[in-house]
Formats: sequence, C-alpha cells, structure tokens
Amino acid sequence: MTFQPARAIGANSADEALHQFNIERREPGPRDVAIRIAYCGVCHSDLHTIKGEWGGTLYPCVPGHEIVGEVVAVGGDVTRFKTGDAVGVGCMVDSCQHCASCAEGEEQYCENGLVGTYNGATQDPPGHTLGGYSDSIVVDERFVLKVSHPADQLAAVAPLLCAGITTYSPLRHWNVGPGKKVGIVGIGGLGHMGVKLAHAMGAHTVAFTTSESKRQDAYDLGADEVVISRDPEQMAAHGRSFDFILNTVAAPHNLDAFTSLLKVNGTMCLVGVPAEPHPSPNVGVLIFGRRAIAGSLIGGIRETQEMLDFCAEHGITSDIEMIRGDQINEAYERMLRSDVKYRFVIDIATFAA
Amino acid sequence: MTFQPARAIGANSADEALHQFNIERREPGPRDVAIRIAYCGVCHSDLHTIKGEWGGTLYPCVPGHEIVGEVVAVGGDVTRFKTGDAVGVGCMVDSCQHCASCAEGEEQYCENGLVGTYNGATQDPPGHTLGGYSDSIVVDERFVLKVSHPADQLAAVAPLLCAGITTYSPLRHWNVGPGKKVGIVGIGGLGHMGVKLAHAMGAHTVAFTTSESKRQDAYDLGADEVVISRDPEQMAAHGRSFDFILNTVAAPHNLDAFTSLLKVNGTMCLVGVPAEPHPSPNVGVLIFGRRAIAGSLIGGIRETQEMLDFCAEHGITSDIEMIRGDQINEAYERMLRSDVKYRFVIDIATFAA
Repeated sequence: MTFQPARAIGANSADEALHQFNIERREPGPRDVAIRIAYCGVCHSDLHTIKGEWGGTLYPCVPGHEIVGEVVAVGGDVTRFKTGDAVGVGCMVDSCQHCASCAEGEEQYCENGLVGTYNGATQDPPGHTLGGYSDSIVVDERFVLKVSHPADQLAAVAPLLCAGITTYSPLRHWNVGPGKKVGIVGIGGLGHMGVKLAHAMGAHTVAFTTSESKRQDAYDLGADEVVISRDPEQMAAHGRSFDFILNTVAAPHNLDAFTSLLKVNGTMCLVGVPAEPHPSPNVGVLIFGRRAIAGSLIGGIRETQEMLDFCAEHGITSDIEMIRGDQINEAYERMLRSDVKYRFVIDIATFAA
Repeated sequence: MTFQPARAIGANSADEALHQFNIERREPGPRDVAIRIAYCGVCHSDLHTIKGEWGGTLYPCVPGHEIVGEVVAVGGDVTRFKTGDAVGVGCMVDSCQHCASCAEGEEQYCENGLVGTYNGATQDPPGHTLGGYSDSIVVDERFVLKVSHPADQLAAVAPLLCAGITTYSPLRHWNVGPGKKVGIVGIGGLGHMGVKLAHAMGAHTVAFTTSESKRQDAYDLGADEVVISRDPEQMAAHGRSFDFILNTVAAPHNLDAFTSLLKVNGTMCLVGVPAEPHPSPNVGVLIFGRRAIAGSLIGGIRETQEMLDFCAEHGITSDIEMIRGDQINEAYERMLRSDVKYRFVIDIATFAA
C-alpha cells in the first residue's frame, strides 16, 4: 500500500494547541473513494477527543467527522461514485459488516465496534484514523454519502453528517410526524437541527431553552412554541402532553422536569453524554406514566443518506459560521461558551499551502 | 347512603402496631358489588403506606389491595357478577372514566388520578378508601375481576391482583414471548411472578439474583438460566443479549450492570420505586445501543382480567405463606428481611369475631 501526503489540523497531545501539519492518506484501494475535502464541521466531540477528556485519545489526533467534499478518484470496484461527485463522510468509516446491527444497516451499533472517522482502528499510519480537519480523506464507498444540495450550500451541509443524523435518527425511530407533539431540549448545534427536522417532519414542535434570548431564534428555526425551561409555570403548562422529547443537552440537569411533561408511553431520548452524571432520574415519574428515558447514537449509513436526501428536498441545512483553519483554537473557546449560531465549519481552502 | 360494620386490620398512626378494629362499608349502590373477602395478599406498598414512608397516609389506615373473595350482593344495575361468584379486587377501585387513559382501558394512568383501594379519595367514611385487610368490601363492578381458578387455589390467586399484574403488564407491553430473551431482576414477591409469567409466555427466561441460595428456587419457578448478579463474570457472559429486562428491585442499585446486558433497542423496565434514588444511570450505555430505561404501573382492568385468565389457563398462582390476621406485624418484620417465599396472604377467616 502506498500513501500520499495530506494537510491536516490537529495536535500531538491533549495540552497542545491545534496547528497544521502533514499526514498520510492511503492510495484508494478497489472499493475506496478519494475525497478532496472542502468543508468540515466542528463538533463538541472533536474537542472532547483532542483534549483527551473522554480518555483513550491516540495522538497525533486530527478531529472532524462532518465532512463534505468532492470525489477526486475511485477504486476499480466502486460503483456508486465517480470523480466530481459531491459527497459527505460522517462519524464512521468502517464497521464489521457481519453482525446483526450491520446486517440491519445500523452500523453505528456494530457489535464489534464501529470505526470512527477519527481515533478509530485502522491499518493506515499512524495506526488510528485521522479525521476531516484535512484537505483529503480516503473512505470505503460503503461509508460515503451522496450530497444533492445545491453547490452553494455545501458548507452548511457538513454539520448534517453528525448533528443532522444524531437528531434525525431518533425523531424517525420514535415516529415523529403530523399529529405528534415533540419537544427539543437545548438550542445549540444539535438542538437547532432537531427543531428544523421535527418541524419539517410535520410535528408540533416545542423548543425548550434556558435562555430568553434564544426565543425568537427558536421560532425562526421552526418551533411552534418556545418554553423557557427555568420557568416552572411555563413548564407546568405542558405537563403530560408530549409524545416525544429529544434532549440534546449534555450538561448535567434535572431530567424529571422534562420526563414529567411526557404523555403516558412517551419517551425522552438523550443524545448527549454528560461529563458528570445527571441527577438520578425519579423512577416514580417513569412508573406513573409508563415513560422511558432512552439514548440514541448518530444513525446508520442508509439512514444518513435518507436524512441528507430529506434535507435536500426540504431545503434544510445547518446554520453555520465559517472559520479559517487557523481559527480553530479560538472556535473551540467560543464553543465552550456556547458562542456560536449554531455550528462552526472550517473552510479547508484556508489551510496554509 | 347507609353503612354496615366490617372488621378490619390497620392502624391509627404510623407508629401504632396493626390491630383489628371495626370500620364501615357502604351498602351496595346500583353498580356496586359487595364482596366477602376470603384472602388478602400482603404487598410492600401496604407497609410503606401504613408506616407513612411515602407521606400522605390518611389514618385510620387499612391496607390491602390483593383481594379475593365471594360476591354476597350486587346492585340493581350490575350485569357481570352475581352472588356466589369468586372475584378479585386489585390496586384500584375507581378512576375518572373519561380521560384518554381511561378510554383506552388503562385506568392505572388515569389523568385525573386513579382511586387506590386504600388511601384513595371517596365519599364513604372516613373520607378515604380502606383496603382488603378486612372481611368485606364494596366496589363498583367496573373494578371487580372474575376469578376462574379452582376454589382451592384462591388464596394463592390473591397476590396476582398486584404482584401478578405489575409483572404481566410490562411483559406484554414489551412483547415478551417465544424467541425473546428476557431477564427478571430480583426473586421476591414481584420477581417470582415475573419468572413464572415470562416462562409461561414462552420467552427464554433468565433470573437475576444476588443470592446463591435462590438459584434452585429460580429454576423451580421456571427460569431457563440463573445469574448471580454480584458475579461480574456471569454478568459479562450475557452482555448485549437481552430483548427486555424486568427489574423488580426497589433497593437502590447499579442499573448499568443490567442495561449493558440489553441488545440494541432493548428496554429495562423498573417496577419498584426506591426510597433513595438509584445511582444515576450511565447515559453512554443508553446511547451506544439505543437502549431505554422505562417504568410501568400495575395494569388496566381489562389487562388484569386478561392476566387472571392467562394464569388460570396456565395453572399459575403465587407461591404464598398463609398467615392469621394477628400475625401481620410479624409478617411485616419478616418481609423487611425478605424472609418470605414469596408472598404473605392473610386468611381473613382468622379475624377475631
């Protein structure tokens, strides 16, 4: 196997600031698609990983799993892509392909462990995968997505590959649609996508935010109602009324305040892993309504393609702020302050030559 | 409205030992069924309530909601019961009958509040309902169940009215049956019914117990496998393999040890409310398998009848230890030490004249 140099932004330790360096990408094998990356979204997971906050980070680390670009070469057995296609890559670049989850097209739950787009196991140097803060990537065609949005929207498509599918998959799994009342907790990178998607699916969409300043934004995103979750009266007015709540907030918080708003048989799905545990949920709130607290992880490749097609059809993209490659450390600082509406996207063309 | 005296066992305060005294029961109205109680099961909720541990206990308190007896009179509009019928009464004696839950026959989730068989709201003296530790009770026919077990099994039927339906309803709701692997956590009053029912439903049934001494008992109840939950190796051998887990343990414990044994899309249902919260469940275990933690409360009247009929058809009753009325305080002490296999039932015929 031979390799080509690529430019990337990352770090060699948890303490080091992110900076540009060269990495190697494999020459495309028979089933591979080589992609010139145009844009890469900036996800909270990127920061957690490169700062070593989840443990197990392998260095050098190159984050990024919200990738949009153009196909520049394909292997001989590739059937679904050709040079010039606009494509995306999300959080996974491989899975075992033979377990029950993979067989069902839910590679995100691969029993043998999905291969993450960064920090995953690979034969390629340096022995772990390197992500999308880079000007190129080579990916098995089974993990490459078609992008059919207009060319001028590609930067705003990038965050769909993680924030989009992370919210789309549970909304679909729990049958969100017309006639359903759905809550979206937290109006950030994930939540702003959740509001757009639930609205587009036809549900009565209620945005929960702690911040009065986000009220108008939430309406603009498509919310039918906005509830300031710190206001007990506003919360109580919605008691026992929700079919489903998608909770995107990773900071530890009182889950009971939301589960008590579910109807009988309602589910609240969590998509954020808190650094410290949430206060333990009240079991009585679950029992006295046959309610559930669930979790959901991104989505399978088939569903990710479905999500991208749904978004293209409904004109949905992420609200983004574009940054240069050399602004990534500043972007992380702002992300920690929630000072972004609603997703940073790196313009890879700004990398130093 | 006129009233008849009845004998009952209860207490006038949280600190008082239980003892026998007289209460009043209403004369049956047009839709009422008057029942001579033969047996009443002893549920942990009885103890929590009469000792005031949940707050809100109204005194005098007469516990008991696992009632089996014989119809001795019916009101003029009663159509489903006649004198001499063997009948049961469970945890509810009324509900609003007009909310969405009641309309669906799930009165246990009545939006306006079910009326408990004891400590519930009523016009009858003393202003709150008095339960089944009594020689008679008068109940609206809509909350009376037919008992079709053989006459010599009636004492062992009594616990089905709470312990039976509390386990039957979630097993049905989450589609337990042939081809499904189901865990029952805790082999006590609820759990021993869970094992019998899951086995009768045709599921591969795995009993979890902390106690090696219950291994053979669990097999005898119908478990296909028994896992000592304190043994990490035994637990690990079942990783990601369960479709559904019914967790009957109310004592605070590590829920992750069980949720991590669920397959993708699996649910663990809790039916016990802990006095202190469980350690907060690990959100990652939920997310990395789209797993859920849910709760479930008894069952509706229609489903309770279905459960009784299912048990009669399959020859299922509770394993009981019969006690005299004057042994109730001792039985509570033994229940607190889990020294019962698996349910005490009061023989009402032993009440003092």
